[in-house]
Amino acid sequence: MIAITSSHISDERIEEIVQHIEKFGVAAHVSKGTDRTVIGIIGKADPALAEQLRAMKDVENVIKISKSYKLASRDFHPDNTVIKIKDVEIGGDQLVVMGGPCAVESPEQIDLIARLVKAAGGQVLRGGAFKPRTGPYSFQGVGVEGLEMMAEAGRKHGLLTITEVMTPEYVDICAEHADILQVGTRNMQNFDLLRKLGTIQTPVLLKRGFSATYDEFLNAAEYILAGGNPNVMLCERGIRTFETYTRNTLDLSAVPVLQSLSHLPVIADPSHGTGRRELVEPMCRASVAAGADGLIIEMHNDPDNSMTGDGVQSLFPDQFANLLVDLEKLAEVLGRKFD
Amino acid sequence: MIAITSSHISDERIEEIVQHIEKFGVAAHVSKGTDRTVIGIIGKADPALAEQLRAMKDVENVIKISKSYKLASRDFHPDNTVIKIKDVEIGGDQLVVMGGPCAVESPEQIDLIARLVKAAGGQVLRGGAFKPRTGPYSFQGVGVEGLEMMAEAGRKHGLLTITEVMTPEYVDICAEHADILQVGTRNMQNFDLLRKLGTIQTPVLLKRGFSATYDEFLNAAEYILAGGNPNVMLCERGIRTFETYTRNTLDLSAVPVLQSLSHLPVIADPSHGTGRRELVEPMCRASVAAGADGLIIEMHNDPDNSMTGDGVQSLFPDQFANLLVDLEKLAEVLGRKFD
Amino acid sequence: MIAITSSHISDERIEEIVQHIEKFGVAAHVSKGTDRTVIGIIGKADPALAEQLRAMKDVENVIKISKSYKLASRDFHPDNTVIKIKDVEIGGDQLVVMGGPCAVESPEQIDLIARLVKAAGGQVLRGGAFKPRTGPYSFQGVGVEGLEMMAEAGRKHGLLTITEVMTPEYVDICAEHADILQVGTRNMQNFDLLRKLGTIQTPVLLKRGFSATYDEFLNAAEYILAGGNPNVMLCERGIRTFETYTRNTLDLSAVPVLQSLSHLPVIADPSHGTGRRELVEPMCRASVAAGADGLIIEMHNDPDNSMTGDGVQSLFPDQFANLLVDLEKLAEVLGRKFD
Amino acid sequence: MIAITSSHISDERIEEIVQHIEKFGVAAHVSKGTDRTVIGIIGKADPALAEQLRAMKDVENVIKISKSYKLASRDFHPDNTVIKIKDVEIGGDQLVVMGGPCAVESPEQIDLIARLVKAAGGQVLRGGAFKPRTGPYSFQGVGVEGLEMMAEAGRKHGLLTITEVMTPEYVDICAEHADILQVGTRNMQNFDLLRKLGTIQTPVLLKRGFSATYDEFLNAAEYILAGGNPNVMLCERGIRTFETYTRNTLDLSAVPVLQSLSHLPVIADPSHGTGRRELVEPMCRASVAAGADGLIIEMHNDPDNSMTGDGVQSLFPDQFANLLVDLEKLAEVLGRKFD
Repeated sequence: MIAITSSHISDERIEEIVQHIEKFGVAAHVSKGTDRTVIGIIGKADPALAEQLRAMKDVENVIKISKSYKLASRDFHPDNTVIKIKDVEIGGDQLVVMGGPCAVESPEQIDLIARLVKAAGGQVLRGGAFKPRTGPYSFQGVGVEGLEMMAEAGRKHGLLTITEVMTPEYVDICAEHADILQVGTRNMQNFDLLRKLGTIQTPVLLKRGFSATYDEFLNAAEYILAGGNPNVMLCERGIRTFETYTRNTLDLSAVPVLQSLSHLPVIADPSHGTGRRELVEPMCRASVAAGADGLIIEMHNDPDNSMTGDGVQSLFPDQFANLLVDLEKLAEVLGRKFD
Repeated sequence: MIAITSSHISDERIEEIVQHIEKFGVAAHVSKGTDRTVIGIIGKADPALAEQLRAMKDVENVIKISKSYKLASRDFHPDNTVIKIKDVEIGGDQLVVMGGPCAVESPEQIDLIARLVKAAGGQVLRGGAFKPRTGPYSFQGVGVEGLEMMAEAGRKHGLLTITEVMTPEYVDICAEHADILQVGTRNMQNFDLLRKLGTIQTPVLLKRGFSATYDEFLNAAEYILAGGNPNVMLCERGIRTFETYTRNTLDLSAVPVLQSLSHLPVIADPSHGTGRRELVEPMCRASVAAGADGLIIEMHNDPDNSMTGDGVQSLFPDQFANLLVDLEKLAEVLGRKFD
Repeated sequence: MIAITSSHISDERIEEIVQHIEKFGVAAHVSKGTDRTVIGIIGKADPALAEQLRAMKDVENVIKISKSYKLASRDFHPDNTVIKIKDVEIGGDQLVVMGGPCAVESPEQIDLIARLVKAAGGQVLRGGAFKPRTGPYSFQGVGVEGLEMMAEAGRKHGLLTITEVMTPEYVDICAEHADILQVGTRNMQNFDLLRKLGTIQTPVLLKRGFSATYDEFLNAAEYILAGGNPNVMLCERGIRTFETYTRNTLDLSAVPVLQSLSHLPVIADPSHGTGRRELVEPMCRASVAAGADGLIIEMHNDPDNSMTGDGVQSLFPDQFANLLVDLEKLAEVLGRKFD
Repeated sequence: MIAITSSHISDERIEEIVQHIEKFGVAAHVSKGTDRTVIGIIGKADPALAEQLRAMKDVENVIKISKSYKLASRDFHPDNTVIKIKDVEIGGDQLVVMGGPCAVESPEQIDLIARLVKAAGGQVLRGGAFKPRTGPYSFQGVGVEGLEMMAEAGRKHGLLTITEVMTPEYVDICAEHADILQVGTRNMQNFDLLRKLGTIQTPVLLKRGFSATYDEFLNAAEYILAGGNPNVMLCERGIRTFETYTRNTLDLSAVPVLQSLSHLPVIADPSHGTGRRELVEPMCRASVAAGADGLIIEMHNDPDNSMTGDGVQSLFPDQFANLLVDLEKLAEVLGRKFD
């Protein structure tokens, strides 16, 4: 950690700051430049020190050199985390495809889609029972019943299931029915939800907040890991930028960046990341080529009658099936297994 | 609402879409242009229709002409909402100043700061007992005890109090101790929290998500209003942009925009909106000149020993007092009362 | 084009607006909704009409349904533009790789790098003789001599050459020496430069402005096309977002988006798009998988002694050679030729 | 300047880097932390050193502690620059208002508007003779004749004039006719234009690029100053963000930030900064309260027949006149003269 002081700081004030730092049991190296004085803090400092320094008079900036997260960091855990759920391994050589509708609508719908996902070669069935919606008057999901419909379809067709959980009190019931719990983009910094997910062992797919930096994203994962749940996957799902033609800007550099900063598996979500059906296929290919450990893809059997607007980005069943054929070829060239 | 179709759509498909629209009890006007066909939906449509249209094949874009929120809209409620709490009126002629530390630290600290806020002419004491923190290892607030310390300081010095609530289960206890509940920027779309706040009558200060559009912000307010709590204030606290010199970019246009779109009071937060002490004063003045109904300002008696890094943006007590003298003069010219 | 009026508009004012529209020789369809009135303009309108409408009292918004560019649009030119330069075809089946240093530094340096690019299988040598620099005290390029060094190296090793032109008066001399002229991201809306490039036939690689929308990007291309030069390639080189870990955010969705909106070839620039050497390789692979017609990649033989800071994103020669081996395998699976 | 190395760097490599630094005549202090080694560069380093360090293997990041601009910096020039043109002083106590249409259209139009600006108390007439336009088919301005019409109207009504110059070759003719030359947002990094403006003495109003950081903005000013023209004003005109309700997001914090980093006068442009007529008035007030040295405001006598779409943000003459009455009162409270 480095503290940069204002240009007109007095020697007495520098000495005061140094003494403040030393109270935390770490050393301070003062380095006077032409314009400014830089104080380096040597040793693992309490996070409170950074905060106090930042608040102090005559300190202009505090730059962290070490990362603020530990358990999520590759420095701490050099080998890839591989999450094994039944016969699926996420984060290893296997390419994992999660497919399904935005929202579970009925037992027939989810059963039909599960059949299509399985037939195409997908390993995980996605579907929302609880839907986070911008406005209070939009369809909010079918609720607990949806969890049961999805669990049944997953069992019947031999697929794992993933569903979104929005609030701490629903974590237990969702974990009872689904193999993977998803934290949505708007909840990435819902710290109570993250803490609750740290108390169980069910794997969690944590979506990047639509305006979260990599550092904030990995700190959010740290909340779950620090609670005791090591089974976290990171999901890049597009960020908010000035471009409005696509619903979000899929930041595929996040895939290699997160894999270098962290040991956790990285999944890409080109459906939400683009918000446009015609872009899902090329961006699924690009995600795999960028090194993603898996994909989560929206597919709907009948978008004309979908219950949420996310149908606009859902693939038709035949598009989904053809895409997975392509991905298999691509996976092979890239040293990934997908079958 | 307007649906814009793709350029190669067939007449049969247009007819199918029109029939789909009419099932929702509204009329469809088809208007064929040189390139594209536009379908206008006339009448108050179910939000589900917009979503289904967006999902349909050959529909390229759906543009909402009416707003998706109602209770928050000035169309629905032409007069300003004035929230009266004891002898303070927020949203009327009075300029309201909320001041205090980022976090409550001890009874002595909050008592001292309350005395300073009162002496300077502020009406509301701010302070956090629960702190949302990016990383799990940072100071998370002193908890319920902090609520009690703050309530006591408010009572003693004749100030209203405002504190942040982070999770539905803490709403009741926070409402017991504080006059106003604050929803932080990371929780603006924590829909369960918003729903819970809709079930009480305690005034809520809703902070804009750091990447939320005005439309999303007003839809978040709508969740609280729709639940039955009409006492909502909107707070602009800076948005995330490419500029990193300031912690956030204070979007002061939000003040007149929100006042034109909505009848709810609008408060500005230049402390978080800039993240730099030296910018708080000019931006407080600018907020009042832009028409803000109130300000929320961080002030700390001893930033060197503040327990959170937000000290960097906290005013010193004398800066705070001088600023309020300036604001009084400014308020007078602008037709606001502040005394 | 659609004009949306304010909610309180009078019938007389609507009639005035309609008459104004009809003066432009197009028809106006008025459609009164519950809240607002929408006026549809039917027929190819003069762009001035959109502007006047936007300026009129009681007009709240004008939404263009047709695109504002024509020659750049795929509607106008359904087949891909293939730019043939000597034996290289850009925009067809061939994958094109442009490689080289940020700046030409000496005849020896550019000759050595040209040899490495050729040996690895690249078709085009890149290098800057004039460098656009944020501050006036940075190295500004070696100038005209650099053009000659590069032309010589290209000739000797059988490579095409591409170099950046920054100002209209240098267009002719750059075109004399280089096979392709590059317009940098800061000059995407330097309209005099674009107009000048429209008067020649030398192919132009137009880089997307770092905060330009797709629509603005294609309008910039339109300036060159409208001047009479049909040989334009579009280059995605990363956009500015809130994320600062990468220098820019490479927006790979731009590749399929631009290919669907336009017939022009699309090149990706993962070097500037990420600004970090370790991300260039995965993002080159991702670019090809997203469908890019070519890549432009920085490579330097001796980054420790590079004359510009862009060395941080330059590949070492062996990385470059290995990457091109990988890209060949990938190209094959994706139906592209690269040899 | 500080170089941060990668965690696995060898002592030999550190030594190599230090020797490289010392070749530039400055000292290097190595400070080994728990995770990383930090190398501090002590002394005024050549900008090329920063660039080379950034490019070197095992250097992860280079952080500049000193600023990259000099002449534009307040460290270099502690007193405010006051630009005196005839009897108007920009950057001193006086509040300066520049008003007029987006584009000069005819002698009658500009004469009428000049009269209105003068009557309301404005000191400078604005108007564009050359218009930068996103697409090639939009109205591009009336050209040189417009310069003459404006000069004549300014002379007749006793107003200074400001007009935009878009390309180096037009600098001289524009400077002949106008008192102040404006560089538009898209040209902030048109370095040849900046260099040319450095060779004259006519005052320049430099608009911030719509996605430029403060640092880039001040470096652009540095190009003009370094060329020998000290008469530069900075203009905040809104930045591009995710919010699309306003055309840009007016970043008013830029006013006090730029005034603290630099000695140059700062002008605000609420017309382009919001792009909506109803926001111009409150944001003009806010700009003055934030400390702006002046305002540039669009006003049009007949927006229904304006020749550019910017009419949407133009004030009507009576709005403009009333606003200036308000600003006078505000100026007084804030210690500014405006009469």
